Amino acid sequence: MSKAVVLLSGGLDSAATAAIARSEGFGLYALSFDYGQRHLRELDSAKAVAQSLGAKDHLIIHFDLRGMGGSALTDEIEVPLDRPDNDISSVVPITYVPARNTIFLSFALGYAETIGAFDIFIGVSQVDYSGYPDCRMEFIDAFEDMANLATKAGVEGTGRFRIRTPLLELSKADAVRRGLDLGLDYSLTWSCYLGESRPCGRCDSCKLRLAAFAEAGEADPLDYL
Amino acid sequence: MSKAVVLLSGGLDSAATAAIARSEGFGLYALSFDYGQRHLRELDSAKAVAQSLGAKDHLIIHFDLRGMGGSALTDEIEVPLDRPDNDISSVVPITYVPARNTIFLSFALGYAETIGAFDIFIGVSQVDYSGYPDCRMEFIDAFEDMANLATKAGVEGTGRFRIRTPLLELSKADAVRRGLDLGLDYSLTWSCYLGESRPCGRCDSCKLRLAAFAEAGEADPLDYL
Repeated sequence: MSKAVVLLSGGLDSAATAAIARSEGFGLYALSFDYGQRHLRELDSAKAVAQSLGAKDHLIIHFDLRGMGGSALTDEIEVPLDRPDNDISSVVPITYVPARNTIFLSFALGYAETIGAFDIFIGVSQVDYSGYPDCRMEFIDAFEDMANLATKAGVEGTGRFRIRTPLLELSKADAVRRGLDLGLDYSLTWSCYLGESRPCGRCDSCKLRLAAFAEAGEADPLDYL
Repeated sequence: MSKAVVLLSGGLDSAATAAIARSEGFGLYALSFDYGQRHLRELDSAKAVAQSLGAKDHLIIHFDLRGMGGSALTDEIEVPLDRPDNDISSVVPITYVPARNTIFLSFALGYAETIGAFDIFIGVSQVDYSGYPDCRMEFIDAFEDMANLATKAGVEGTGRFRIRTPLLELSKADAVRRGLDLGLDYSLTWSCYLGESRPCGRCDSCKLRLAAFAEAGEADPLDYL
């Protein structure tokens, strides 16, 4: 069974991505991060999702971006609630964490090289791009090129690393449907930025999630405040 | 004064690189990592070097690669001593940490974006390449391309990130000389993989350091076992 590293945040998109990787026959090696995010609760969701998909291993890497500043997700800046949909989709959000996907993919590359995997799955979508530069195809392609120059495996020609983005051209609603088709249990996932015991329904992440379920014509199994 | 992020390990090369960045008029923002390496002592050296060069700030990011395995620097694998020079220069060493420079540069990119710096200095040399794929020019170029697609600043056109490698074409001996010309105090630096109170003089890193000082015709100020 081929191995794949899957970046798993505990949210909708990464869970659907993991389900897709499993459906392609990969043995899953889940990778999550505890990076001082407010919504640490999502790590419990990541564990539950990894377990439900029969992951072979689940590595959680701890690091601290708080000393770095620059984001409402890791700083004491207030998370905006009830933003107009227009703002959500057009402005680089203040919840943008500098170089986050670059950092995540770099660790995934190290993990992949260590376990002998060449496929790295990440749940980015450029349809729901929302102003995050590191969710776009050109970024992913550039990372893949770099990855194959960065590593012993790449240099020695043992294989070619591939950054797999099965959601890249899917809307969030389509990603929800794809996950449901594969039997994914979305009650295990978590999206709310606030990380309280129940999701707020008012932060950007909750609003995008609710809109995705609504557009997919499906009920979100989570119990909102 | 323009800001530069400088990756500072506490070793010879990164110290010389930092001295060069300062000589170019940059305000230095040093970045070091505590990643479960055996030779944690190098972090004390990094602090001393940063201070001696008047760094504006010094951020130390903690993360743990031990769960990942794959290297004698972070695992319980024995560090080889007294290897023939031939082995040191031709084989990808078992002290290779998967994707290490990729991970380091990714954090540096996040730090640079946060503080508004566009220059990131790293002390790699392809002359003393020694089998590390992530010390080569092609890797650095690929990382730079990726960095400018990964970031808000890159996408919004605020500036272009540059990965600066002033040692790339220098031998380790030339790097030592360059540092001395700039008044760098090498007694503050540390290279030994073992991280005891005094350097062993027998691991690959000590041997490369001693050879560099010998070739430069200078005395290494450290007191070896």
